[in-house]
Amino acid sequence: MYLFLMRFIVKKWNKIYNMWVRKGKNMSKKYVYLFNEGNASMRNLLGGKGAGLAEMTNLGLPVPGGFTVTTEACLRYYEDNETLHPDIQKEIFDTLEKFEKSVGKKLGDPNNPLLLSVRSGARVSMPGMMDTVLNLGINDEIVQSLIKLTGNEKFAYDSYRRFIQMYSDVVINLPKSSFERIIDEMKENRGVKLDNELTAEDLKELVAKFKAYYKEAKREDFPTDPKKQLLTAAEAVFRSWNNPRAIYYRQMNEIPHEWGTAVNVQMMVFGNMGNDCATGVAFSRNPSTGENKIYGEFLINAQGEDVVAGVRTPMNMSQLKDVMPDVYAQFIDTAKKLEKHYKNMQDMEFTIEKNKLYMLQTRNGKRTAQAALQVACDMYDEGLVTKEEALMQIEPKQLDNLLHPTFDAKLLKSTKPLATALPASPGAACGQVVFTAESAVEWKNKGHKVVLVRLETSPEDIEGMHVAEGVLTVRGGMTSHAAVVARGMGTCCVAGCGDIAMHEDKKYFTLHGETIKEGDYISLDGSTGNIYLGQIATVPATISGNFERIMTWSNEFKKLGVRTNADTPRDAKQAKDFGAEGIGLCRTEHMFFDADRIKSMREMIVAKTVEQREKALAKLLPMQRSDFEGLFKAMEGAPVTIRYLDPPLHEFLPTEEKDIIAIAKELNITTDELKEVIASLHEFNPMMGHRGCRLAVSYPEIAVMQTKAVIEAAINVTKECGYNIVPEIMIPLVGELKELEYVKKIVVSTADELIKNSGLNMKYKVGTMIELPRACVNADEIAKEAEFFSFGTNDLTQMTFGFSRDDAGKFLKDYYDKKIYLNDPFQRFDQEGTGKLVEIAVNKGKTTRPDIKLGVCGEHGGDPSSIDFFHRTGLSYVSCSPFRVPIARLAAAQAAIRNK
Amino acid sequence: MYLFLMRFIVKKWNKIYNMWVRKGKNMSKKYVYLFNEGNASMRNLLGGKGAGLAEMTNLGLPVPGGFTVTTEACLRYYEDNETLHPDIQKEIFDTLEKFEKSVGKKLGDPNNPLLLSVRSGARVSMPGMMDTVLNLGINDEIVQSLIKLTGNEKFAYDSYRRFIQMYSDVVINLPKSSFERIIDEMKENRGVKLDNELTAEDLKELVAKFKAYYKEAKREDFPTDPKKQLLTAAEAVFRSWNNPRAIYYRQMNEIPHEWGTAVNVQMMVFGNMGNDCATGVAFSRNPSTGENKIYGEFLINAQGEDVVAGVRTPMNMSQLKDVMPDVYAQFIDTAKKLEKHYKNMQDMEFTIEKNKLYMLQTRNGKRTAQAALQVACDMYDEGLVTKEEALMQIEPKQLDNLLHPTFDAKLLKSTKPLATALPASPGAACGQVVFTAESAVEWKNKGHKVVLVRLETSPEDIEGMHVAEGVLTVRGGMTSHAAVVARGMGTCCVAGCGDIAMHEDKKYFTLHGETIKEGDYISLDGSTGNIYLGQIATVPATISGNFERIMTWSNEFKKLGVRTNADTPRDAKQAKDFGAEGIGLCRTEHMFFDADRIKSMREMIVAKTVEQREKALAKLLPMQRSDFEGLFKAMEGAPVTIRYLDPPLHEFLPTEEKDIIAIAKELNITTDELKEVIASLHEFNPMMGHRGCRLAVSYPEIAVMQTKAVIEAAINVTKECGYNIVPEIMIPLVGELKELEYVKKIVVSTADELIKNSGLNMKYKVGTMIELPRACVNADEIAKEAEFFSFGTNDLTQMTFGFSRDDAGKFLKDYYDKKIYLNDPFQRFDQEGTGKLVEIAVNKGKTTRPDIKLGVCGEHGGDPSSIDFFHRTGLSYVSCSPFRVPIARLAAAQAAIRNK
Repeated sequence: MYLFLMRFIVKKWNKIYNMWVRKGKNMSKKYVYLFNEGNASMRNLLGGKGAGLAEMTNLGLPVPGGFTVTTEACLRYYEDNETLHPDIQKEIFDTLEKFEKSVGKKLGDPNNPLLLSVRSGARVSMPGMMDTVLNLGINDEIVQSLIKLTGNEKFAYDSYRRFIQMYSDVVINLPKSSFERIIDEMKENRGVKLDNELTAEDLKELVAKFKAYYKEAKREDFPTDPKKQLLTAAEAVFRSWNNPRAIYYRQMNEIPHEWGTAVNVQMMVFGNMGNDCATGVAFSRNPSTGENKIYGEFLINAQGEDVVAGVRTPMNMSQLKDVMPDVYAQFIDTAKKLEKHYKNMQDMEFTIEKNKLYMLQTRNGKRTAQAALQVACDMYDEGLVTKEEALMQIEPKQLDNLLHPTFDAKLLKSTKPLATALPASPGAACGQVVFTAESAVEWKNKGHKVVLVRLETSPEDIEGMHVAEGVLTVRGGMTSHAAVVARGMGTCCVAGCGDIAMHEDKKYFTLHGETIKEGDYISLDGSTGNIYLGQIATVPATISGNFERIMTWSNEFKKLGVRTNADTPRDAKQAKDFGAEGIGLCRTEHMFFDADRIKSMREMIVAKTVEQREKALAKLLPMQRSDFEGLFKAMEGAPVTIRYLDPPLHEFLPTEEKDIIAIAKELNITTDELKEVIASLHEFNPMMGHRGCRLAVSYPEIAVMQTKAVIEAAINVTKECGYNIVPEIMIPLVGELKELEYVKKIVVSTADELIKNSGLNMKYKVGTMIELPRACVNADEIAKEAEFFSFGTNDLTQMTFGFSRDDAGKFLKDYYDKKIYLNDPFQRFDQEGTGKLVEIAVNKGKTTRPDIKLGVCGEHGGDPSSIDFFHRTGLSYVSCSPFRVPIARLAAAQAAIRNK
Repeated sequence: MYLFLMRFIVKKWNKIYNMWVRKGKNMSKKYVYLFNEGNASMRNLLGGKGAGLAEMTNLGLPVPGGFTVTTEACLRYYEDNETLHPDIQKEIFDTLEKFEKSVGKKLGDPNNPLLLSVRSGARVSMPGMMDTVLNLGINDEIVQSLIKLTGNEKFAYDSYRRFIQMYSDVVINLPKSSFERIIDEMKENRGVKLDNELTAEDLKELVAKFKAYYKEAKREDFPTDPKKQLLTAAEAVFRSWNNPRAIYYRQMNEIPHEWGTAVNVQMMVFGNMGNDCATGVAFSRNPSTGENKIYGEFLINAQGEDVVAGVRTPMNMSQLKDVMPDVYAQFIDTAKKLEKHYKNMQDMEFTIEKNKLYMLQTRNGKRTAQAALQVACDMYDEGLVTKEEALMQIEPKQLDNLLHPTFDAKLLKSTKPLATALPASPGAACGQVVFTAESAVEWKNKGHKVVLVRLETSPEDIEGMHVAEGVLTVRGGMTSHAAVVARGMGTCCVAGCGDIAMHEDKKYFTLHGETIKEGDYISLDGSTGNIYLGQIATVPATISGNFERIMTWSNEFKKLGVRTNADTPRDAKQAKDFGAEGIGLCRTEHMFFDADRIKSMREMIVAKTVEQREKALAKLLPMQRSDFEGLFKAMEGAPVTIRYLDPPLHEFLPTEEKDIIAIAKELNITTDELKEVIASLHEFNPMMGHRGCRLAVSYPEIAVMQTKAVIEAAINVTKECGYNIVPEIMIPLVGELKELEYVKKIVVSTADELIKNSGLNMKYKVGTMIELPRACVNADEIAKEAEFFSFGTNDLTQMTFGFSRDDAGKFLKDYYDKKIYLNDPFQRFDQEGTGKLVEIAVNKGKTTRPDIKLGVCGEHGGDPSSIDFFHRTGLSYVSCSPFRVPIARLAAAQAAIRNK
């Protein structure tokens, strides 16, 4: 009993203590900043918009005054179960009072009313995702003051009705459509088409109708207290941080849910007070082409939402010169000032109130890839930015768009997609539908362009995927077999179109009511995931001079090498053209799926004795050797890392009854014998089965054959072309030193013998993939034998998380929805978990072999944020698919600049 | 060119330097020790036998002199590509010379010839696995001296022919059978039955015939140079370290291949010189019962091999008292002295030459489990050992034999097994063959005892396994589903009998020519893997008082807690009787496979809405609650850790067409609908799929139901029985803090509500399994929410190695054969790899929560060497299947004593 009492007291005391600490902590925080108290460096606290407004204020630009409620207040709001703490409320009103004094207007003061805009603003721009309330502070009394002060009744009621509409939508969640219906009725009644054709009287009546509707829906009057309006609007903005489209946007753009949004409260200026007023948005340069010329639109006598709504056709910015030449000149000047200040192209919002320019927002402008390159090069040439700054302006992933053919944008405008699925591999594809890899090859050989449509693809489909313009799958995500292989090939792919009903056997599928048969044309847009019926013309990719210039600059700064994953001379050549410094991963098994080779491969698999197996391998040797000769020639002496056979052998065997019968016949064994082999190779978890170097341990003769192929090819090409070739032999899936020792011994004895006989003084390296957690924690041991490491981050991610790429798709969606994971760890490297194992491996590996070469192969090698991590972790190079090489080069340069 | 030259010089210099260093290193080593230069502590260097001989020599016991060539010489032999370095040869002969001087005899000296035995001796005893050569040093000249010196021609030729035989077998690898055929011919010729009935003349002729055969086979004369005989024999012993049976023995007994063997060269003493000579082996106590009485056998006028060969029937040691009373008394005295010295029961080899006793070997004797307990208790009572020493004498795994019924040993002697497969779960089972779990239940209900024979088992077979006496599977290894579940239940299981041809549909199987039909009797010995036709009677396990005594002592020393893995009150009760201090793992899913429950489970799985799912869960709730009530009652307030639903849901759905049709009907949905659900749940790698806490993330209502069941059960039992129950809720497969946060929130809000309403002040804990590498490296984060960790070493091992338990069996054999892995990491915890992740997790977990409770559940919790690691790593408890609890208790005590 005594103990119980003690526990109770301790617990209570802890609670009180915690409350006290927390109160203390929060009380010392400043939650509200006047614009002139902030600056651009306070983006995390004030949000992008708030920091921008503060910075512009400090620069002396014409910014309507106001203040920002911080992102920390937003977090606190959620911490306090979605209530705004009284302390924060007080701070808002205290700041408001200071502000009111400075401008000489007052919220809710009929004599001199202050009207406010209340807008969201997160650390990074999330355009249109969160909420805004304009004209806040109006009520029946204030509207009369406005009329009196401006003498403009129409303006006053227009502002009032806009406020009621926005407030009801954003704060109260009343359906927008209800208000629009009321307006439409009114316009019909009056026989007018545009909102601004309504008279002051009409608008006054509209206000009354809106308020009546509000009362009916909410069973209370529209709030007349401007202070209450302000608080509820601020809360609504905080809440909008977690509306579904904002959450979705963050997932798409890898923005942490923990950041929160700020609220910007700003004095209203009015573009709708008459014909000496206007509102608009403009870029300091052309965001499509990058041309150094103001680009944007404005509307006379309007508020911001009208520009967006697109009811009236806005005017081009160049026309502002004619309409308001002074304001235009001031705007141009302001834009230049901002560009110079931010060292980047600006995207600005402005309002002109009675011929006076006000800046409402500035931010770095989004732009096309082509424009990004143009702007970066121009700004450097203009002396506005250094090379480093120019490079940092460009979003590496965007370069992808410059590397694939695209649909003619004009044609797309007039074509509705039949469906949209996952944009798995960019590019534009147009061709006739086929349903099997074999048909793809057949049709292609007859001169047709084909699009391969499959439930899902498997390694057996490689050849078909190679000849197809594009690939469409029913199942599978962004990292499914189809997606990964297609990206590797640079082939367009749209994946996971679950709405397709497949009738492969009858050679047709249905999708959203349409039936598409073999031979019908479809078009795929791999950048949007759109699927179109029929043919759409494409335009080839153009790589302008800017592109090369940026790549050259990248090479000046980057520390990481950039290699490519390539299995064929074609891919290797392509990657080399894109600047790859070597091959980081050649997957030898892809070479075995060709129709004329898979037979020998299968003979090897069904072999019952070492002799039979060696006989089959002997048939594969010349083929594999000639593959490597092709690669060595394509790479002209640059390093080539060759990974030995990796997948479980059952991947090479058929699964369908009819194929089994055919192949058994071909292999000259009975169907039962073949079935027995297939059954004996069946695995419960093939990802964790008999694969990687485990194959070489069980069947050393495979490693012998592969070593012969690599070394003989290197010898032949050295003799023929005189390159200094140093083949890098990579043993996959090693988890234990002795395992590597065993395989390396086989490699070395085979290789040394061949080299000795060749009379050359050829060097070669034997290294390993680090793709198992056990290899990471034992990297010091493994480095005793491994002359290099290459992190196989795909498998390492799978083993570290304990989920397989093929299966995780099913539940990862729940994880995103519940905000447990933000990103697909197979696309963006998991620095917090898997990264720790990589760090352990790097440190341990260097302990044993300080100069060990450390690479990354796998999808992450082409992902910019992952590349930043690999740079920081001290790796030597990344390796990625050919079409990602330019991205990786720029990302590597940015990583070096960012972490200098 | 200059650079190249420099490189060349540096390389050469390195080579010379390395040789010099190595030479220096090796030269400073002493490779050969006279017996009086060694002692018992030098076991690693001199081997067990060598250290024993040295120690006996130092004790002043009658040991024929000699010397030991060290295990390091053996390693050097292999390092030098199986050649004996000239330095070592020289050291051997130098030592031999010293020794010869001390005994006044000389190898190869016709005047006073020294004969030698050359025997292996590794760090631990590997009885019969390696080679021995006796009587070394004889040739045609020396045999004449022996005749002259002993006046015993028969002895001399007998020794000679034995030497030729052994040398030819061991050193030259000539087939033993050839020599035996020559002897048999001779005996037939002479009309005698036993070897020792041959006359001196016969033996002389035999020697001639042996030498002739040798010459014919080897095309050279039998070596006459005794020094050459010695070196080649020593080399042969080194080689025998790597003969197949030695390698296999090491694998079975987890002995590292790197240890190597020593070679013991010892002066021959002769038990075959006449009737005042003898040779024998004896234990200082009875190795079957532990009785404190000399136990052993000897043969008059014989050499050691005759005792082993069993041609003549040896005499019981007690008879030695009558034959040679003085020698007997001396032997008893020596045995006592050795027991006292080694503080353990001794297993001794001796020879009596002309009434003089010579000790040839002593080592700790192997004994049955029963004897081990008896000896330990007796020696403590006799004051020979402390409690700690007594505990350290007992091999924990042996206790297993005391916990299961066994076949009547007498009956076994006369019964030949039909086949032998893997001894997957100990015990003896006898029953009628059935082929399905349903038949098992049916037959059992009709009062039959059954043995369940399956290709392999799955969770659906649980009920059948429960009612069966034993389980026999065709596929699967020591850690297959059948093996793990059977060990958990304490049910006998023989697994992986690949020779069985199953005809399940026709209800019979064939094995080695026999056809066994449903209803036929078979008997399984789970300790040997033997399968017998028909019925063999069993004797129940007896737990003597010694057993309890040892367990009590164990509890005095152990630091680790010992809990059990139990899903049913029956298992829990059993474990508690064996001393379990709580339940460390209750797998809730096992409860759902019962026939009357799986329907509701399936309803839940096919549910299309949350409401439907909740309805099905509501049906499961009372069942699960009553399960937990049973467990809480059985454990009487001891801690119970409950793991939430873990396996992928498809495990609960049928796979066979006919079952699908039946179950669809039962669930009131169409077959197609059910097939669709099954297809949607299909996973490529189920081990890495939608399971563990991922289920609770997708379907939080499951966690709600399970929490209700746990907390309501705890409340009910607390109210009914008054125990102080603190349920421990364990969330499986966590890899990320936010994931645990999400599930914990659901648990806590559900639990707190129920507890509040109950009026009790019940506590509960929420913790997690650490079974993913990501959880290990992020353990500091996870410990923020997890109140305890339990290491799921099975899954952690799988993910760390990247191979699945179900698939690894196929290639691990190659890994053992190639000496890459020594042990199955699923049986013996992989301290070198997975252990590093556990250490990381322990350290990180303690950083956040210094007093965090750390457990282990999974098969390793019952493995002694793994338990030692868990003790050293600072865990709080291990948890294992009920029948391993006593083993774990003793192993935990030993770990504490060993690491004091």
